[in-house]
Amino acid sequence: MFESTTQVRVRYGETDKMGYAYYGNYMLYYEIARTDALRSLDLTYKELEDDGILMPVLDLQSKYIKPAFYDELLTIKTTIEELPGVRIHFKYEVFNESNDLLNIGNTTLVFIDAKSKKPCSPPDYFMDKMKPFFR
Amino acid sequence: MFESTTQVRVRYGETDKMGYAYYGNYMLYYEIARTDALRSLDLTYKELEDDGILMPVLDLQSKYIKPAFYDELLTIKTTIEELPGVRIHFKYEVFNESNDLLNIGNTTLVFIDAKSKKPCSPPDYFMDKMKPFFR
Amino acid sequence: MFESTTQVRVRYGETDKMGYAYYGNYMLYYEIARTDALRSLDLTYKELEDDGILMPVLDLQSKYIKPAFYDELLTIKTTIEELPGVRIHFKYEVFNESNDLLNIGNTTLVFIDAKSKKPCSPPDYFMDKMKPFFR
Amino acid sequence: MFESTTQVRVRYGETDKMGYAYYGNYMLYYEIARTDALRSLDLTYKELEDDGILMPVLDLQSKYIKPAFYDELLTIKTTIEELPGVRIHFKYEVFNESNDLLNIGNTTLVFIDAKSKKPCSPPDYFMDKMKPFFR
Repeated sequence: MFESTTQVRVRYGETDKMGYAYYGNYMLYYEIARTDALRSLDLTYKELEDDGILMPVLDLQSKYIKPAFYDELLTIKTTIEELPGVRIHFKYEVFNESNDLLNIGNTTLVFIDAKSKKPCSPPDYFMDKMKPFFR
Repeated sequence: MFESTTQVRVRYGETDKMGYAYYGNYMLYYEIARTDALRSLDLTYKELEDDGILMPVLDLQSKYIKPAFYDELLTIKTTIEELPGVRIHFKYEVFNESNDLLNIGNTTLVFIDAKSKKPCSPPDYFMDKMKPFFR
Repeated sequence: MFESTTQVRVRYGETDKMGYAYYGNYMLYYEIARTDALRSLDLTYKELEDDGILMPVLDLQSKYIKPAFYDELLTIKTTIEELPGVRIHFKYEVFNESNDLLNIGNTTLVFIDAKSKKPCSPPDYFMDKMKPFFR
Repeated sequence: MFESTTQVRVRYGETDKMGYAYYGNYMLYYEIARTDALRSLDLTYKELEDDGILMPVLDLQSKYIKPAFYDELLTIKTTIEELPGVRIHFKYEVFNESNDLLNIGNTTLVFIDAKSKKPCSPPDYFMDKMKPFFR
């Protein structure tokens, strides 16, 4: 299992007239969380794209438990529970500064070859970084 | 069962460097779809808020089947399958101009009293519009 | 001079906790306004990109006069005051349903060759559509 | 004169199909830059709002010099050149990791009383923090 945490502050432009972080903006927070999770292993999504690999999102679940408010510093705990193959699953738990659990998210992404647009395995250097966490 | 369709064009600012509509922007499309669904019954979310009722999203599932591209005119079929109570479920099916199914979404929203922040029943005028579809 | 009008409804996700359409979202409205202006001449920005021409924004001015609120149907009057060359200027006036002027915007975009990334003239078919308005 | 710097990383969802940070997202970057500028003086915009003061944007200019790309860590230098009164001016200079100047922005915001919606002076504690920089 691989775990990582990242922090993100709720921007004014991310709130809505209810005063909450808009429900659609959690997808941006998840994106930051998973790229930071990879970055903590010296893997950048940018590098993967430069190598001709795209990682579109296949599916997404999100559970909104409590609202996040403007200027709150959110902590996101990101977990990869199983060794990635052609697909990679991320789980996100979003906490506020009082350590209340605000949101739980799950996304599945697929590795695809940018040219053929076909699913593919992650590159070896990616798997080499991942494997130690799943023994 | 209640059904409604709405259309939305993919904005340039909604695309990402993959050239796809960014996965987080479907939540904006769902929002438009459900407010248009209510509007087709002469119900506006704005009016509900003015009456002191908020409708935050409780949970969300989204399945990304094919990408949507810049400037495509998407058609969203919105379905309410069961009579709303304190909670209301919307299902969304997003199609492109070739009638390919791109995305399926589900959201649960809850009616809450803006003052007490407690769940509440939808107002009578709301239910009066809904009931004829669930006989 | 070329004029066009387009309409856009303020989405919930575009409001902020003040209850106003967030100031940064006017740039999305301007984008819609100028692409609709071109579309009214059977010119699509998508087609230009497919022909290897990009049109990034060079500069932008925006004056916020009155706020736009959730669910308001805004009318945007878009004007091209001078015949485009390598650069094209758009002016936007945003009105609410009471015909109050809410916002005035100006953008300059430049035609660039996608390969060389150098400024270029707009294609002939583009100029052919434009010229009749500037005699 | 008051100066502050802040950093922001370009999110995937902030890019567009050109591969650039979308021009409308700079307004989010400016927002982060000015709230961080105030925060460096122990002033938070949230606190001002809680005290019944809003700060909508009155006008905005932005000059796009070079594009920002996905995952770049941008540095924004924020400057307040004159002592704020009812209005406050911020200037922003956005640099990439190679220290190239990408964008220059200017915004004017106005202090308004949330109840009366009329312009007002900033509170004393705000001015007390500002004054030392303008002697």
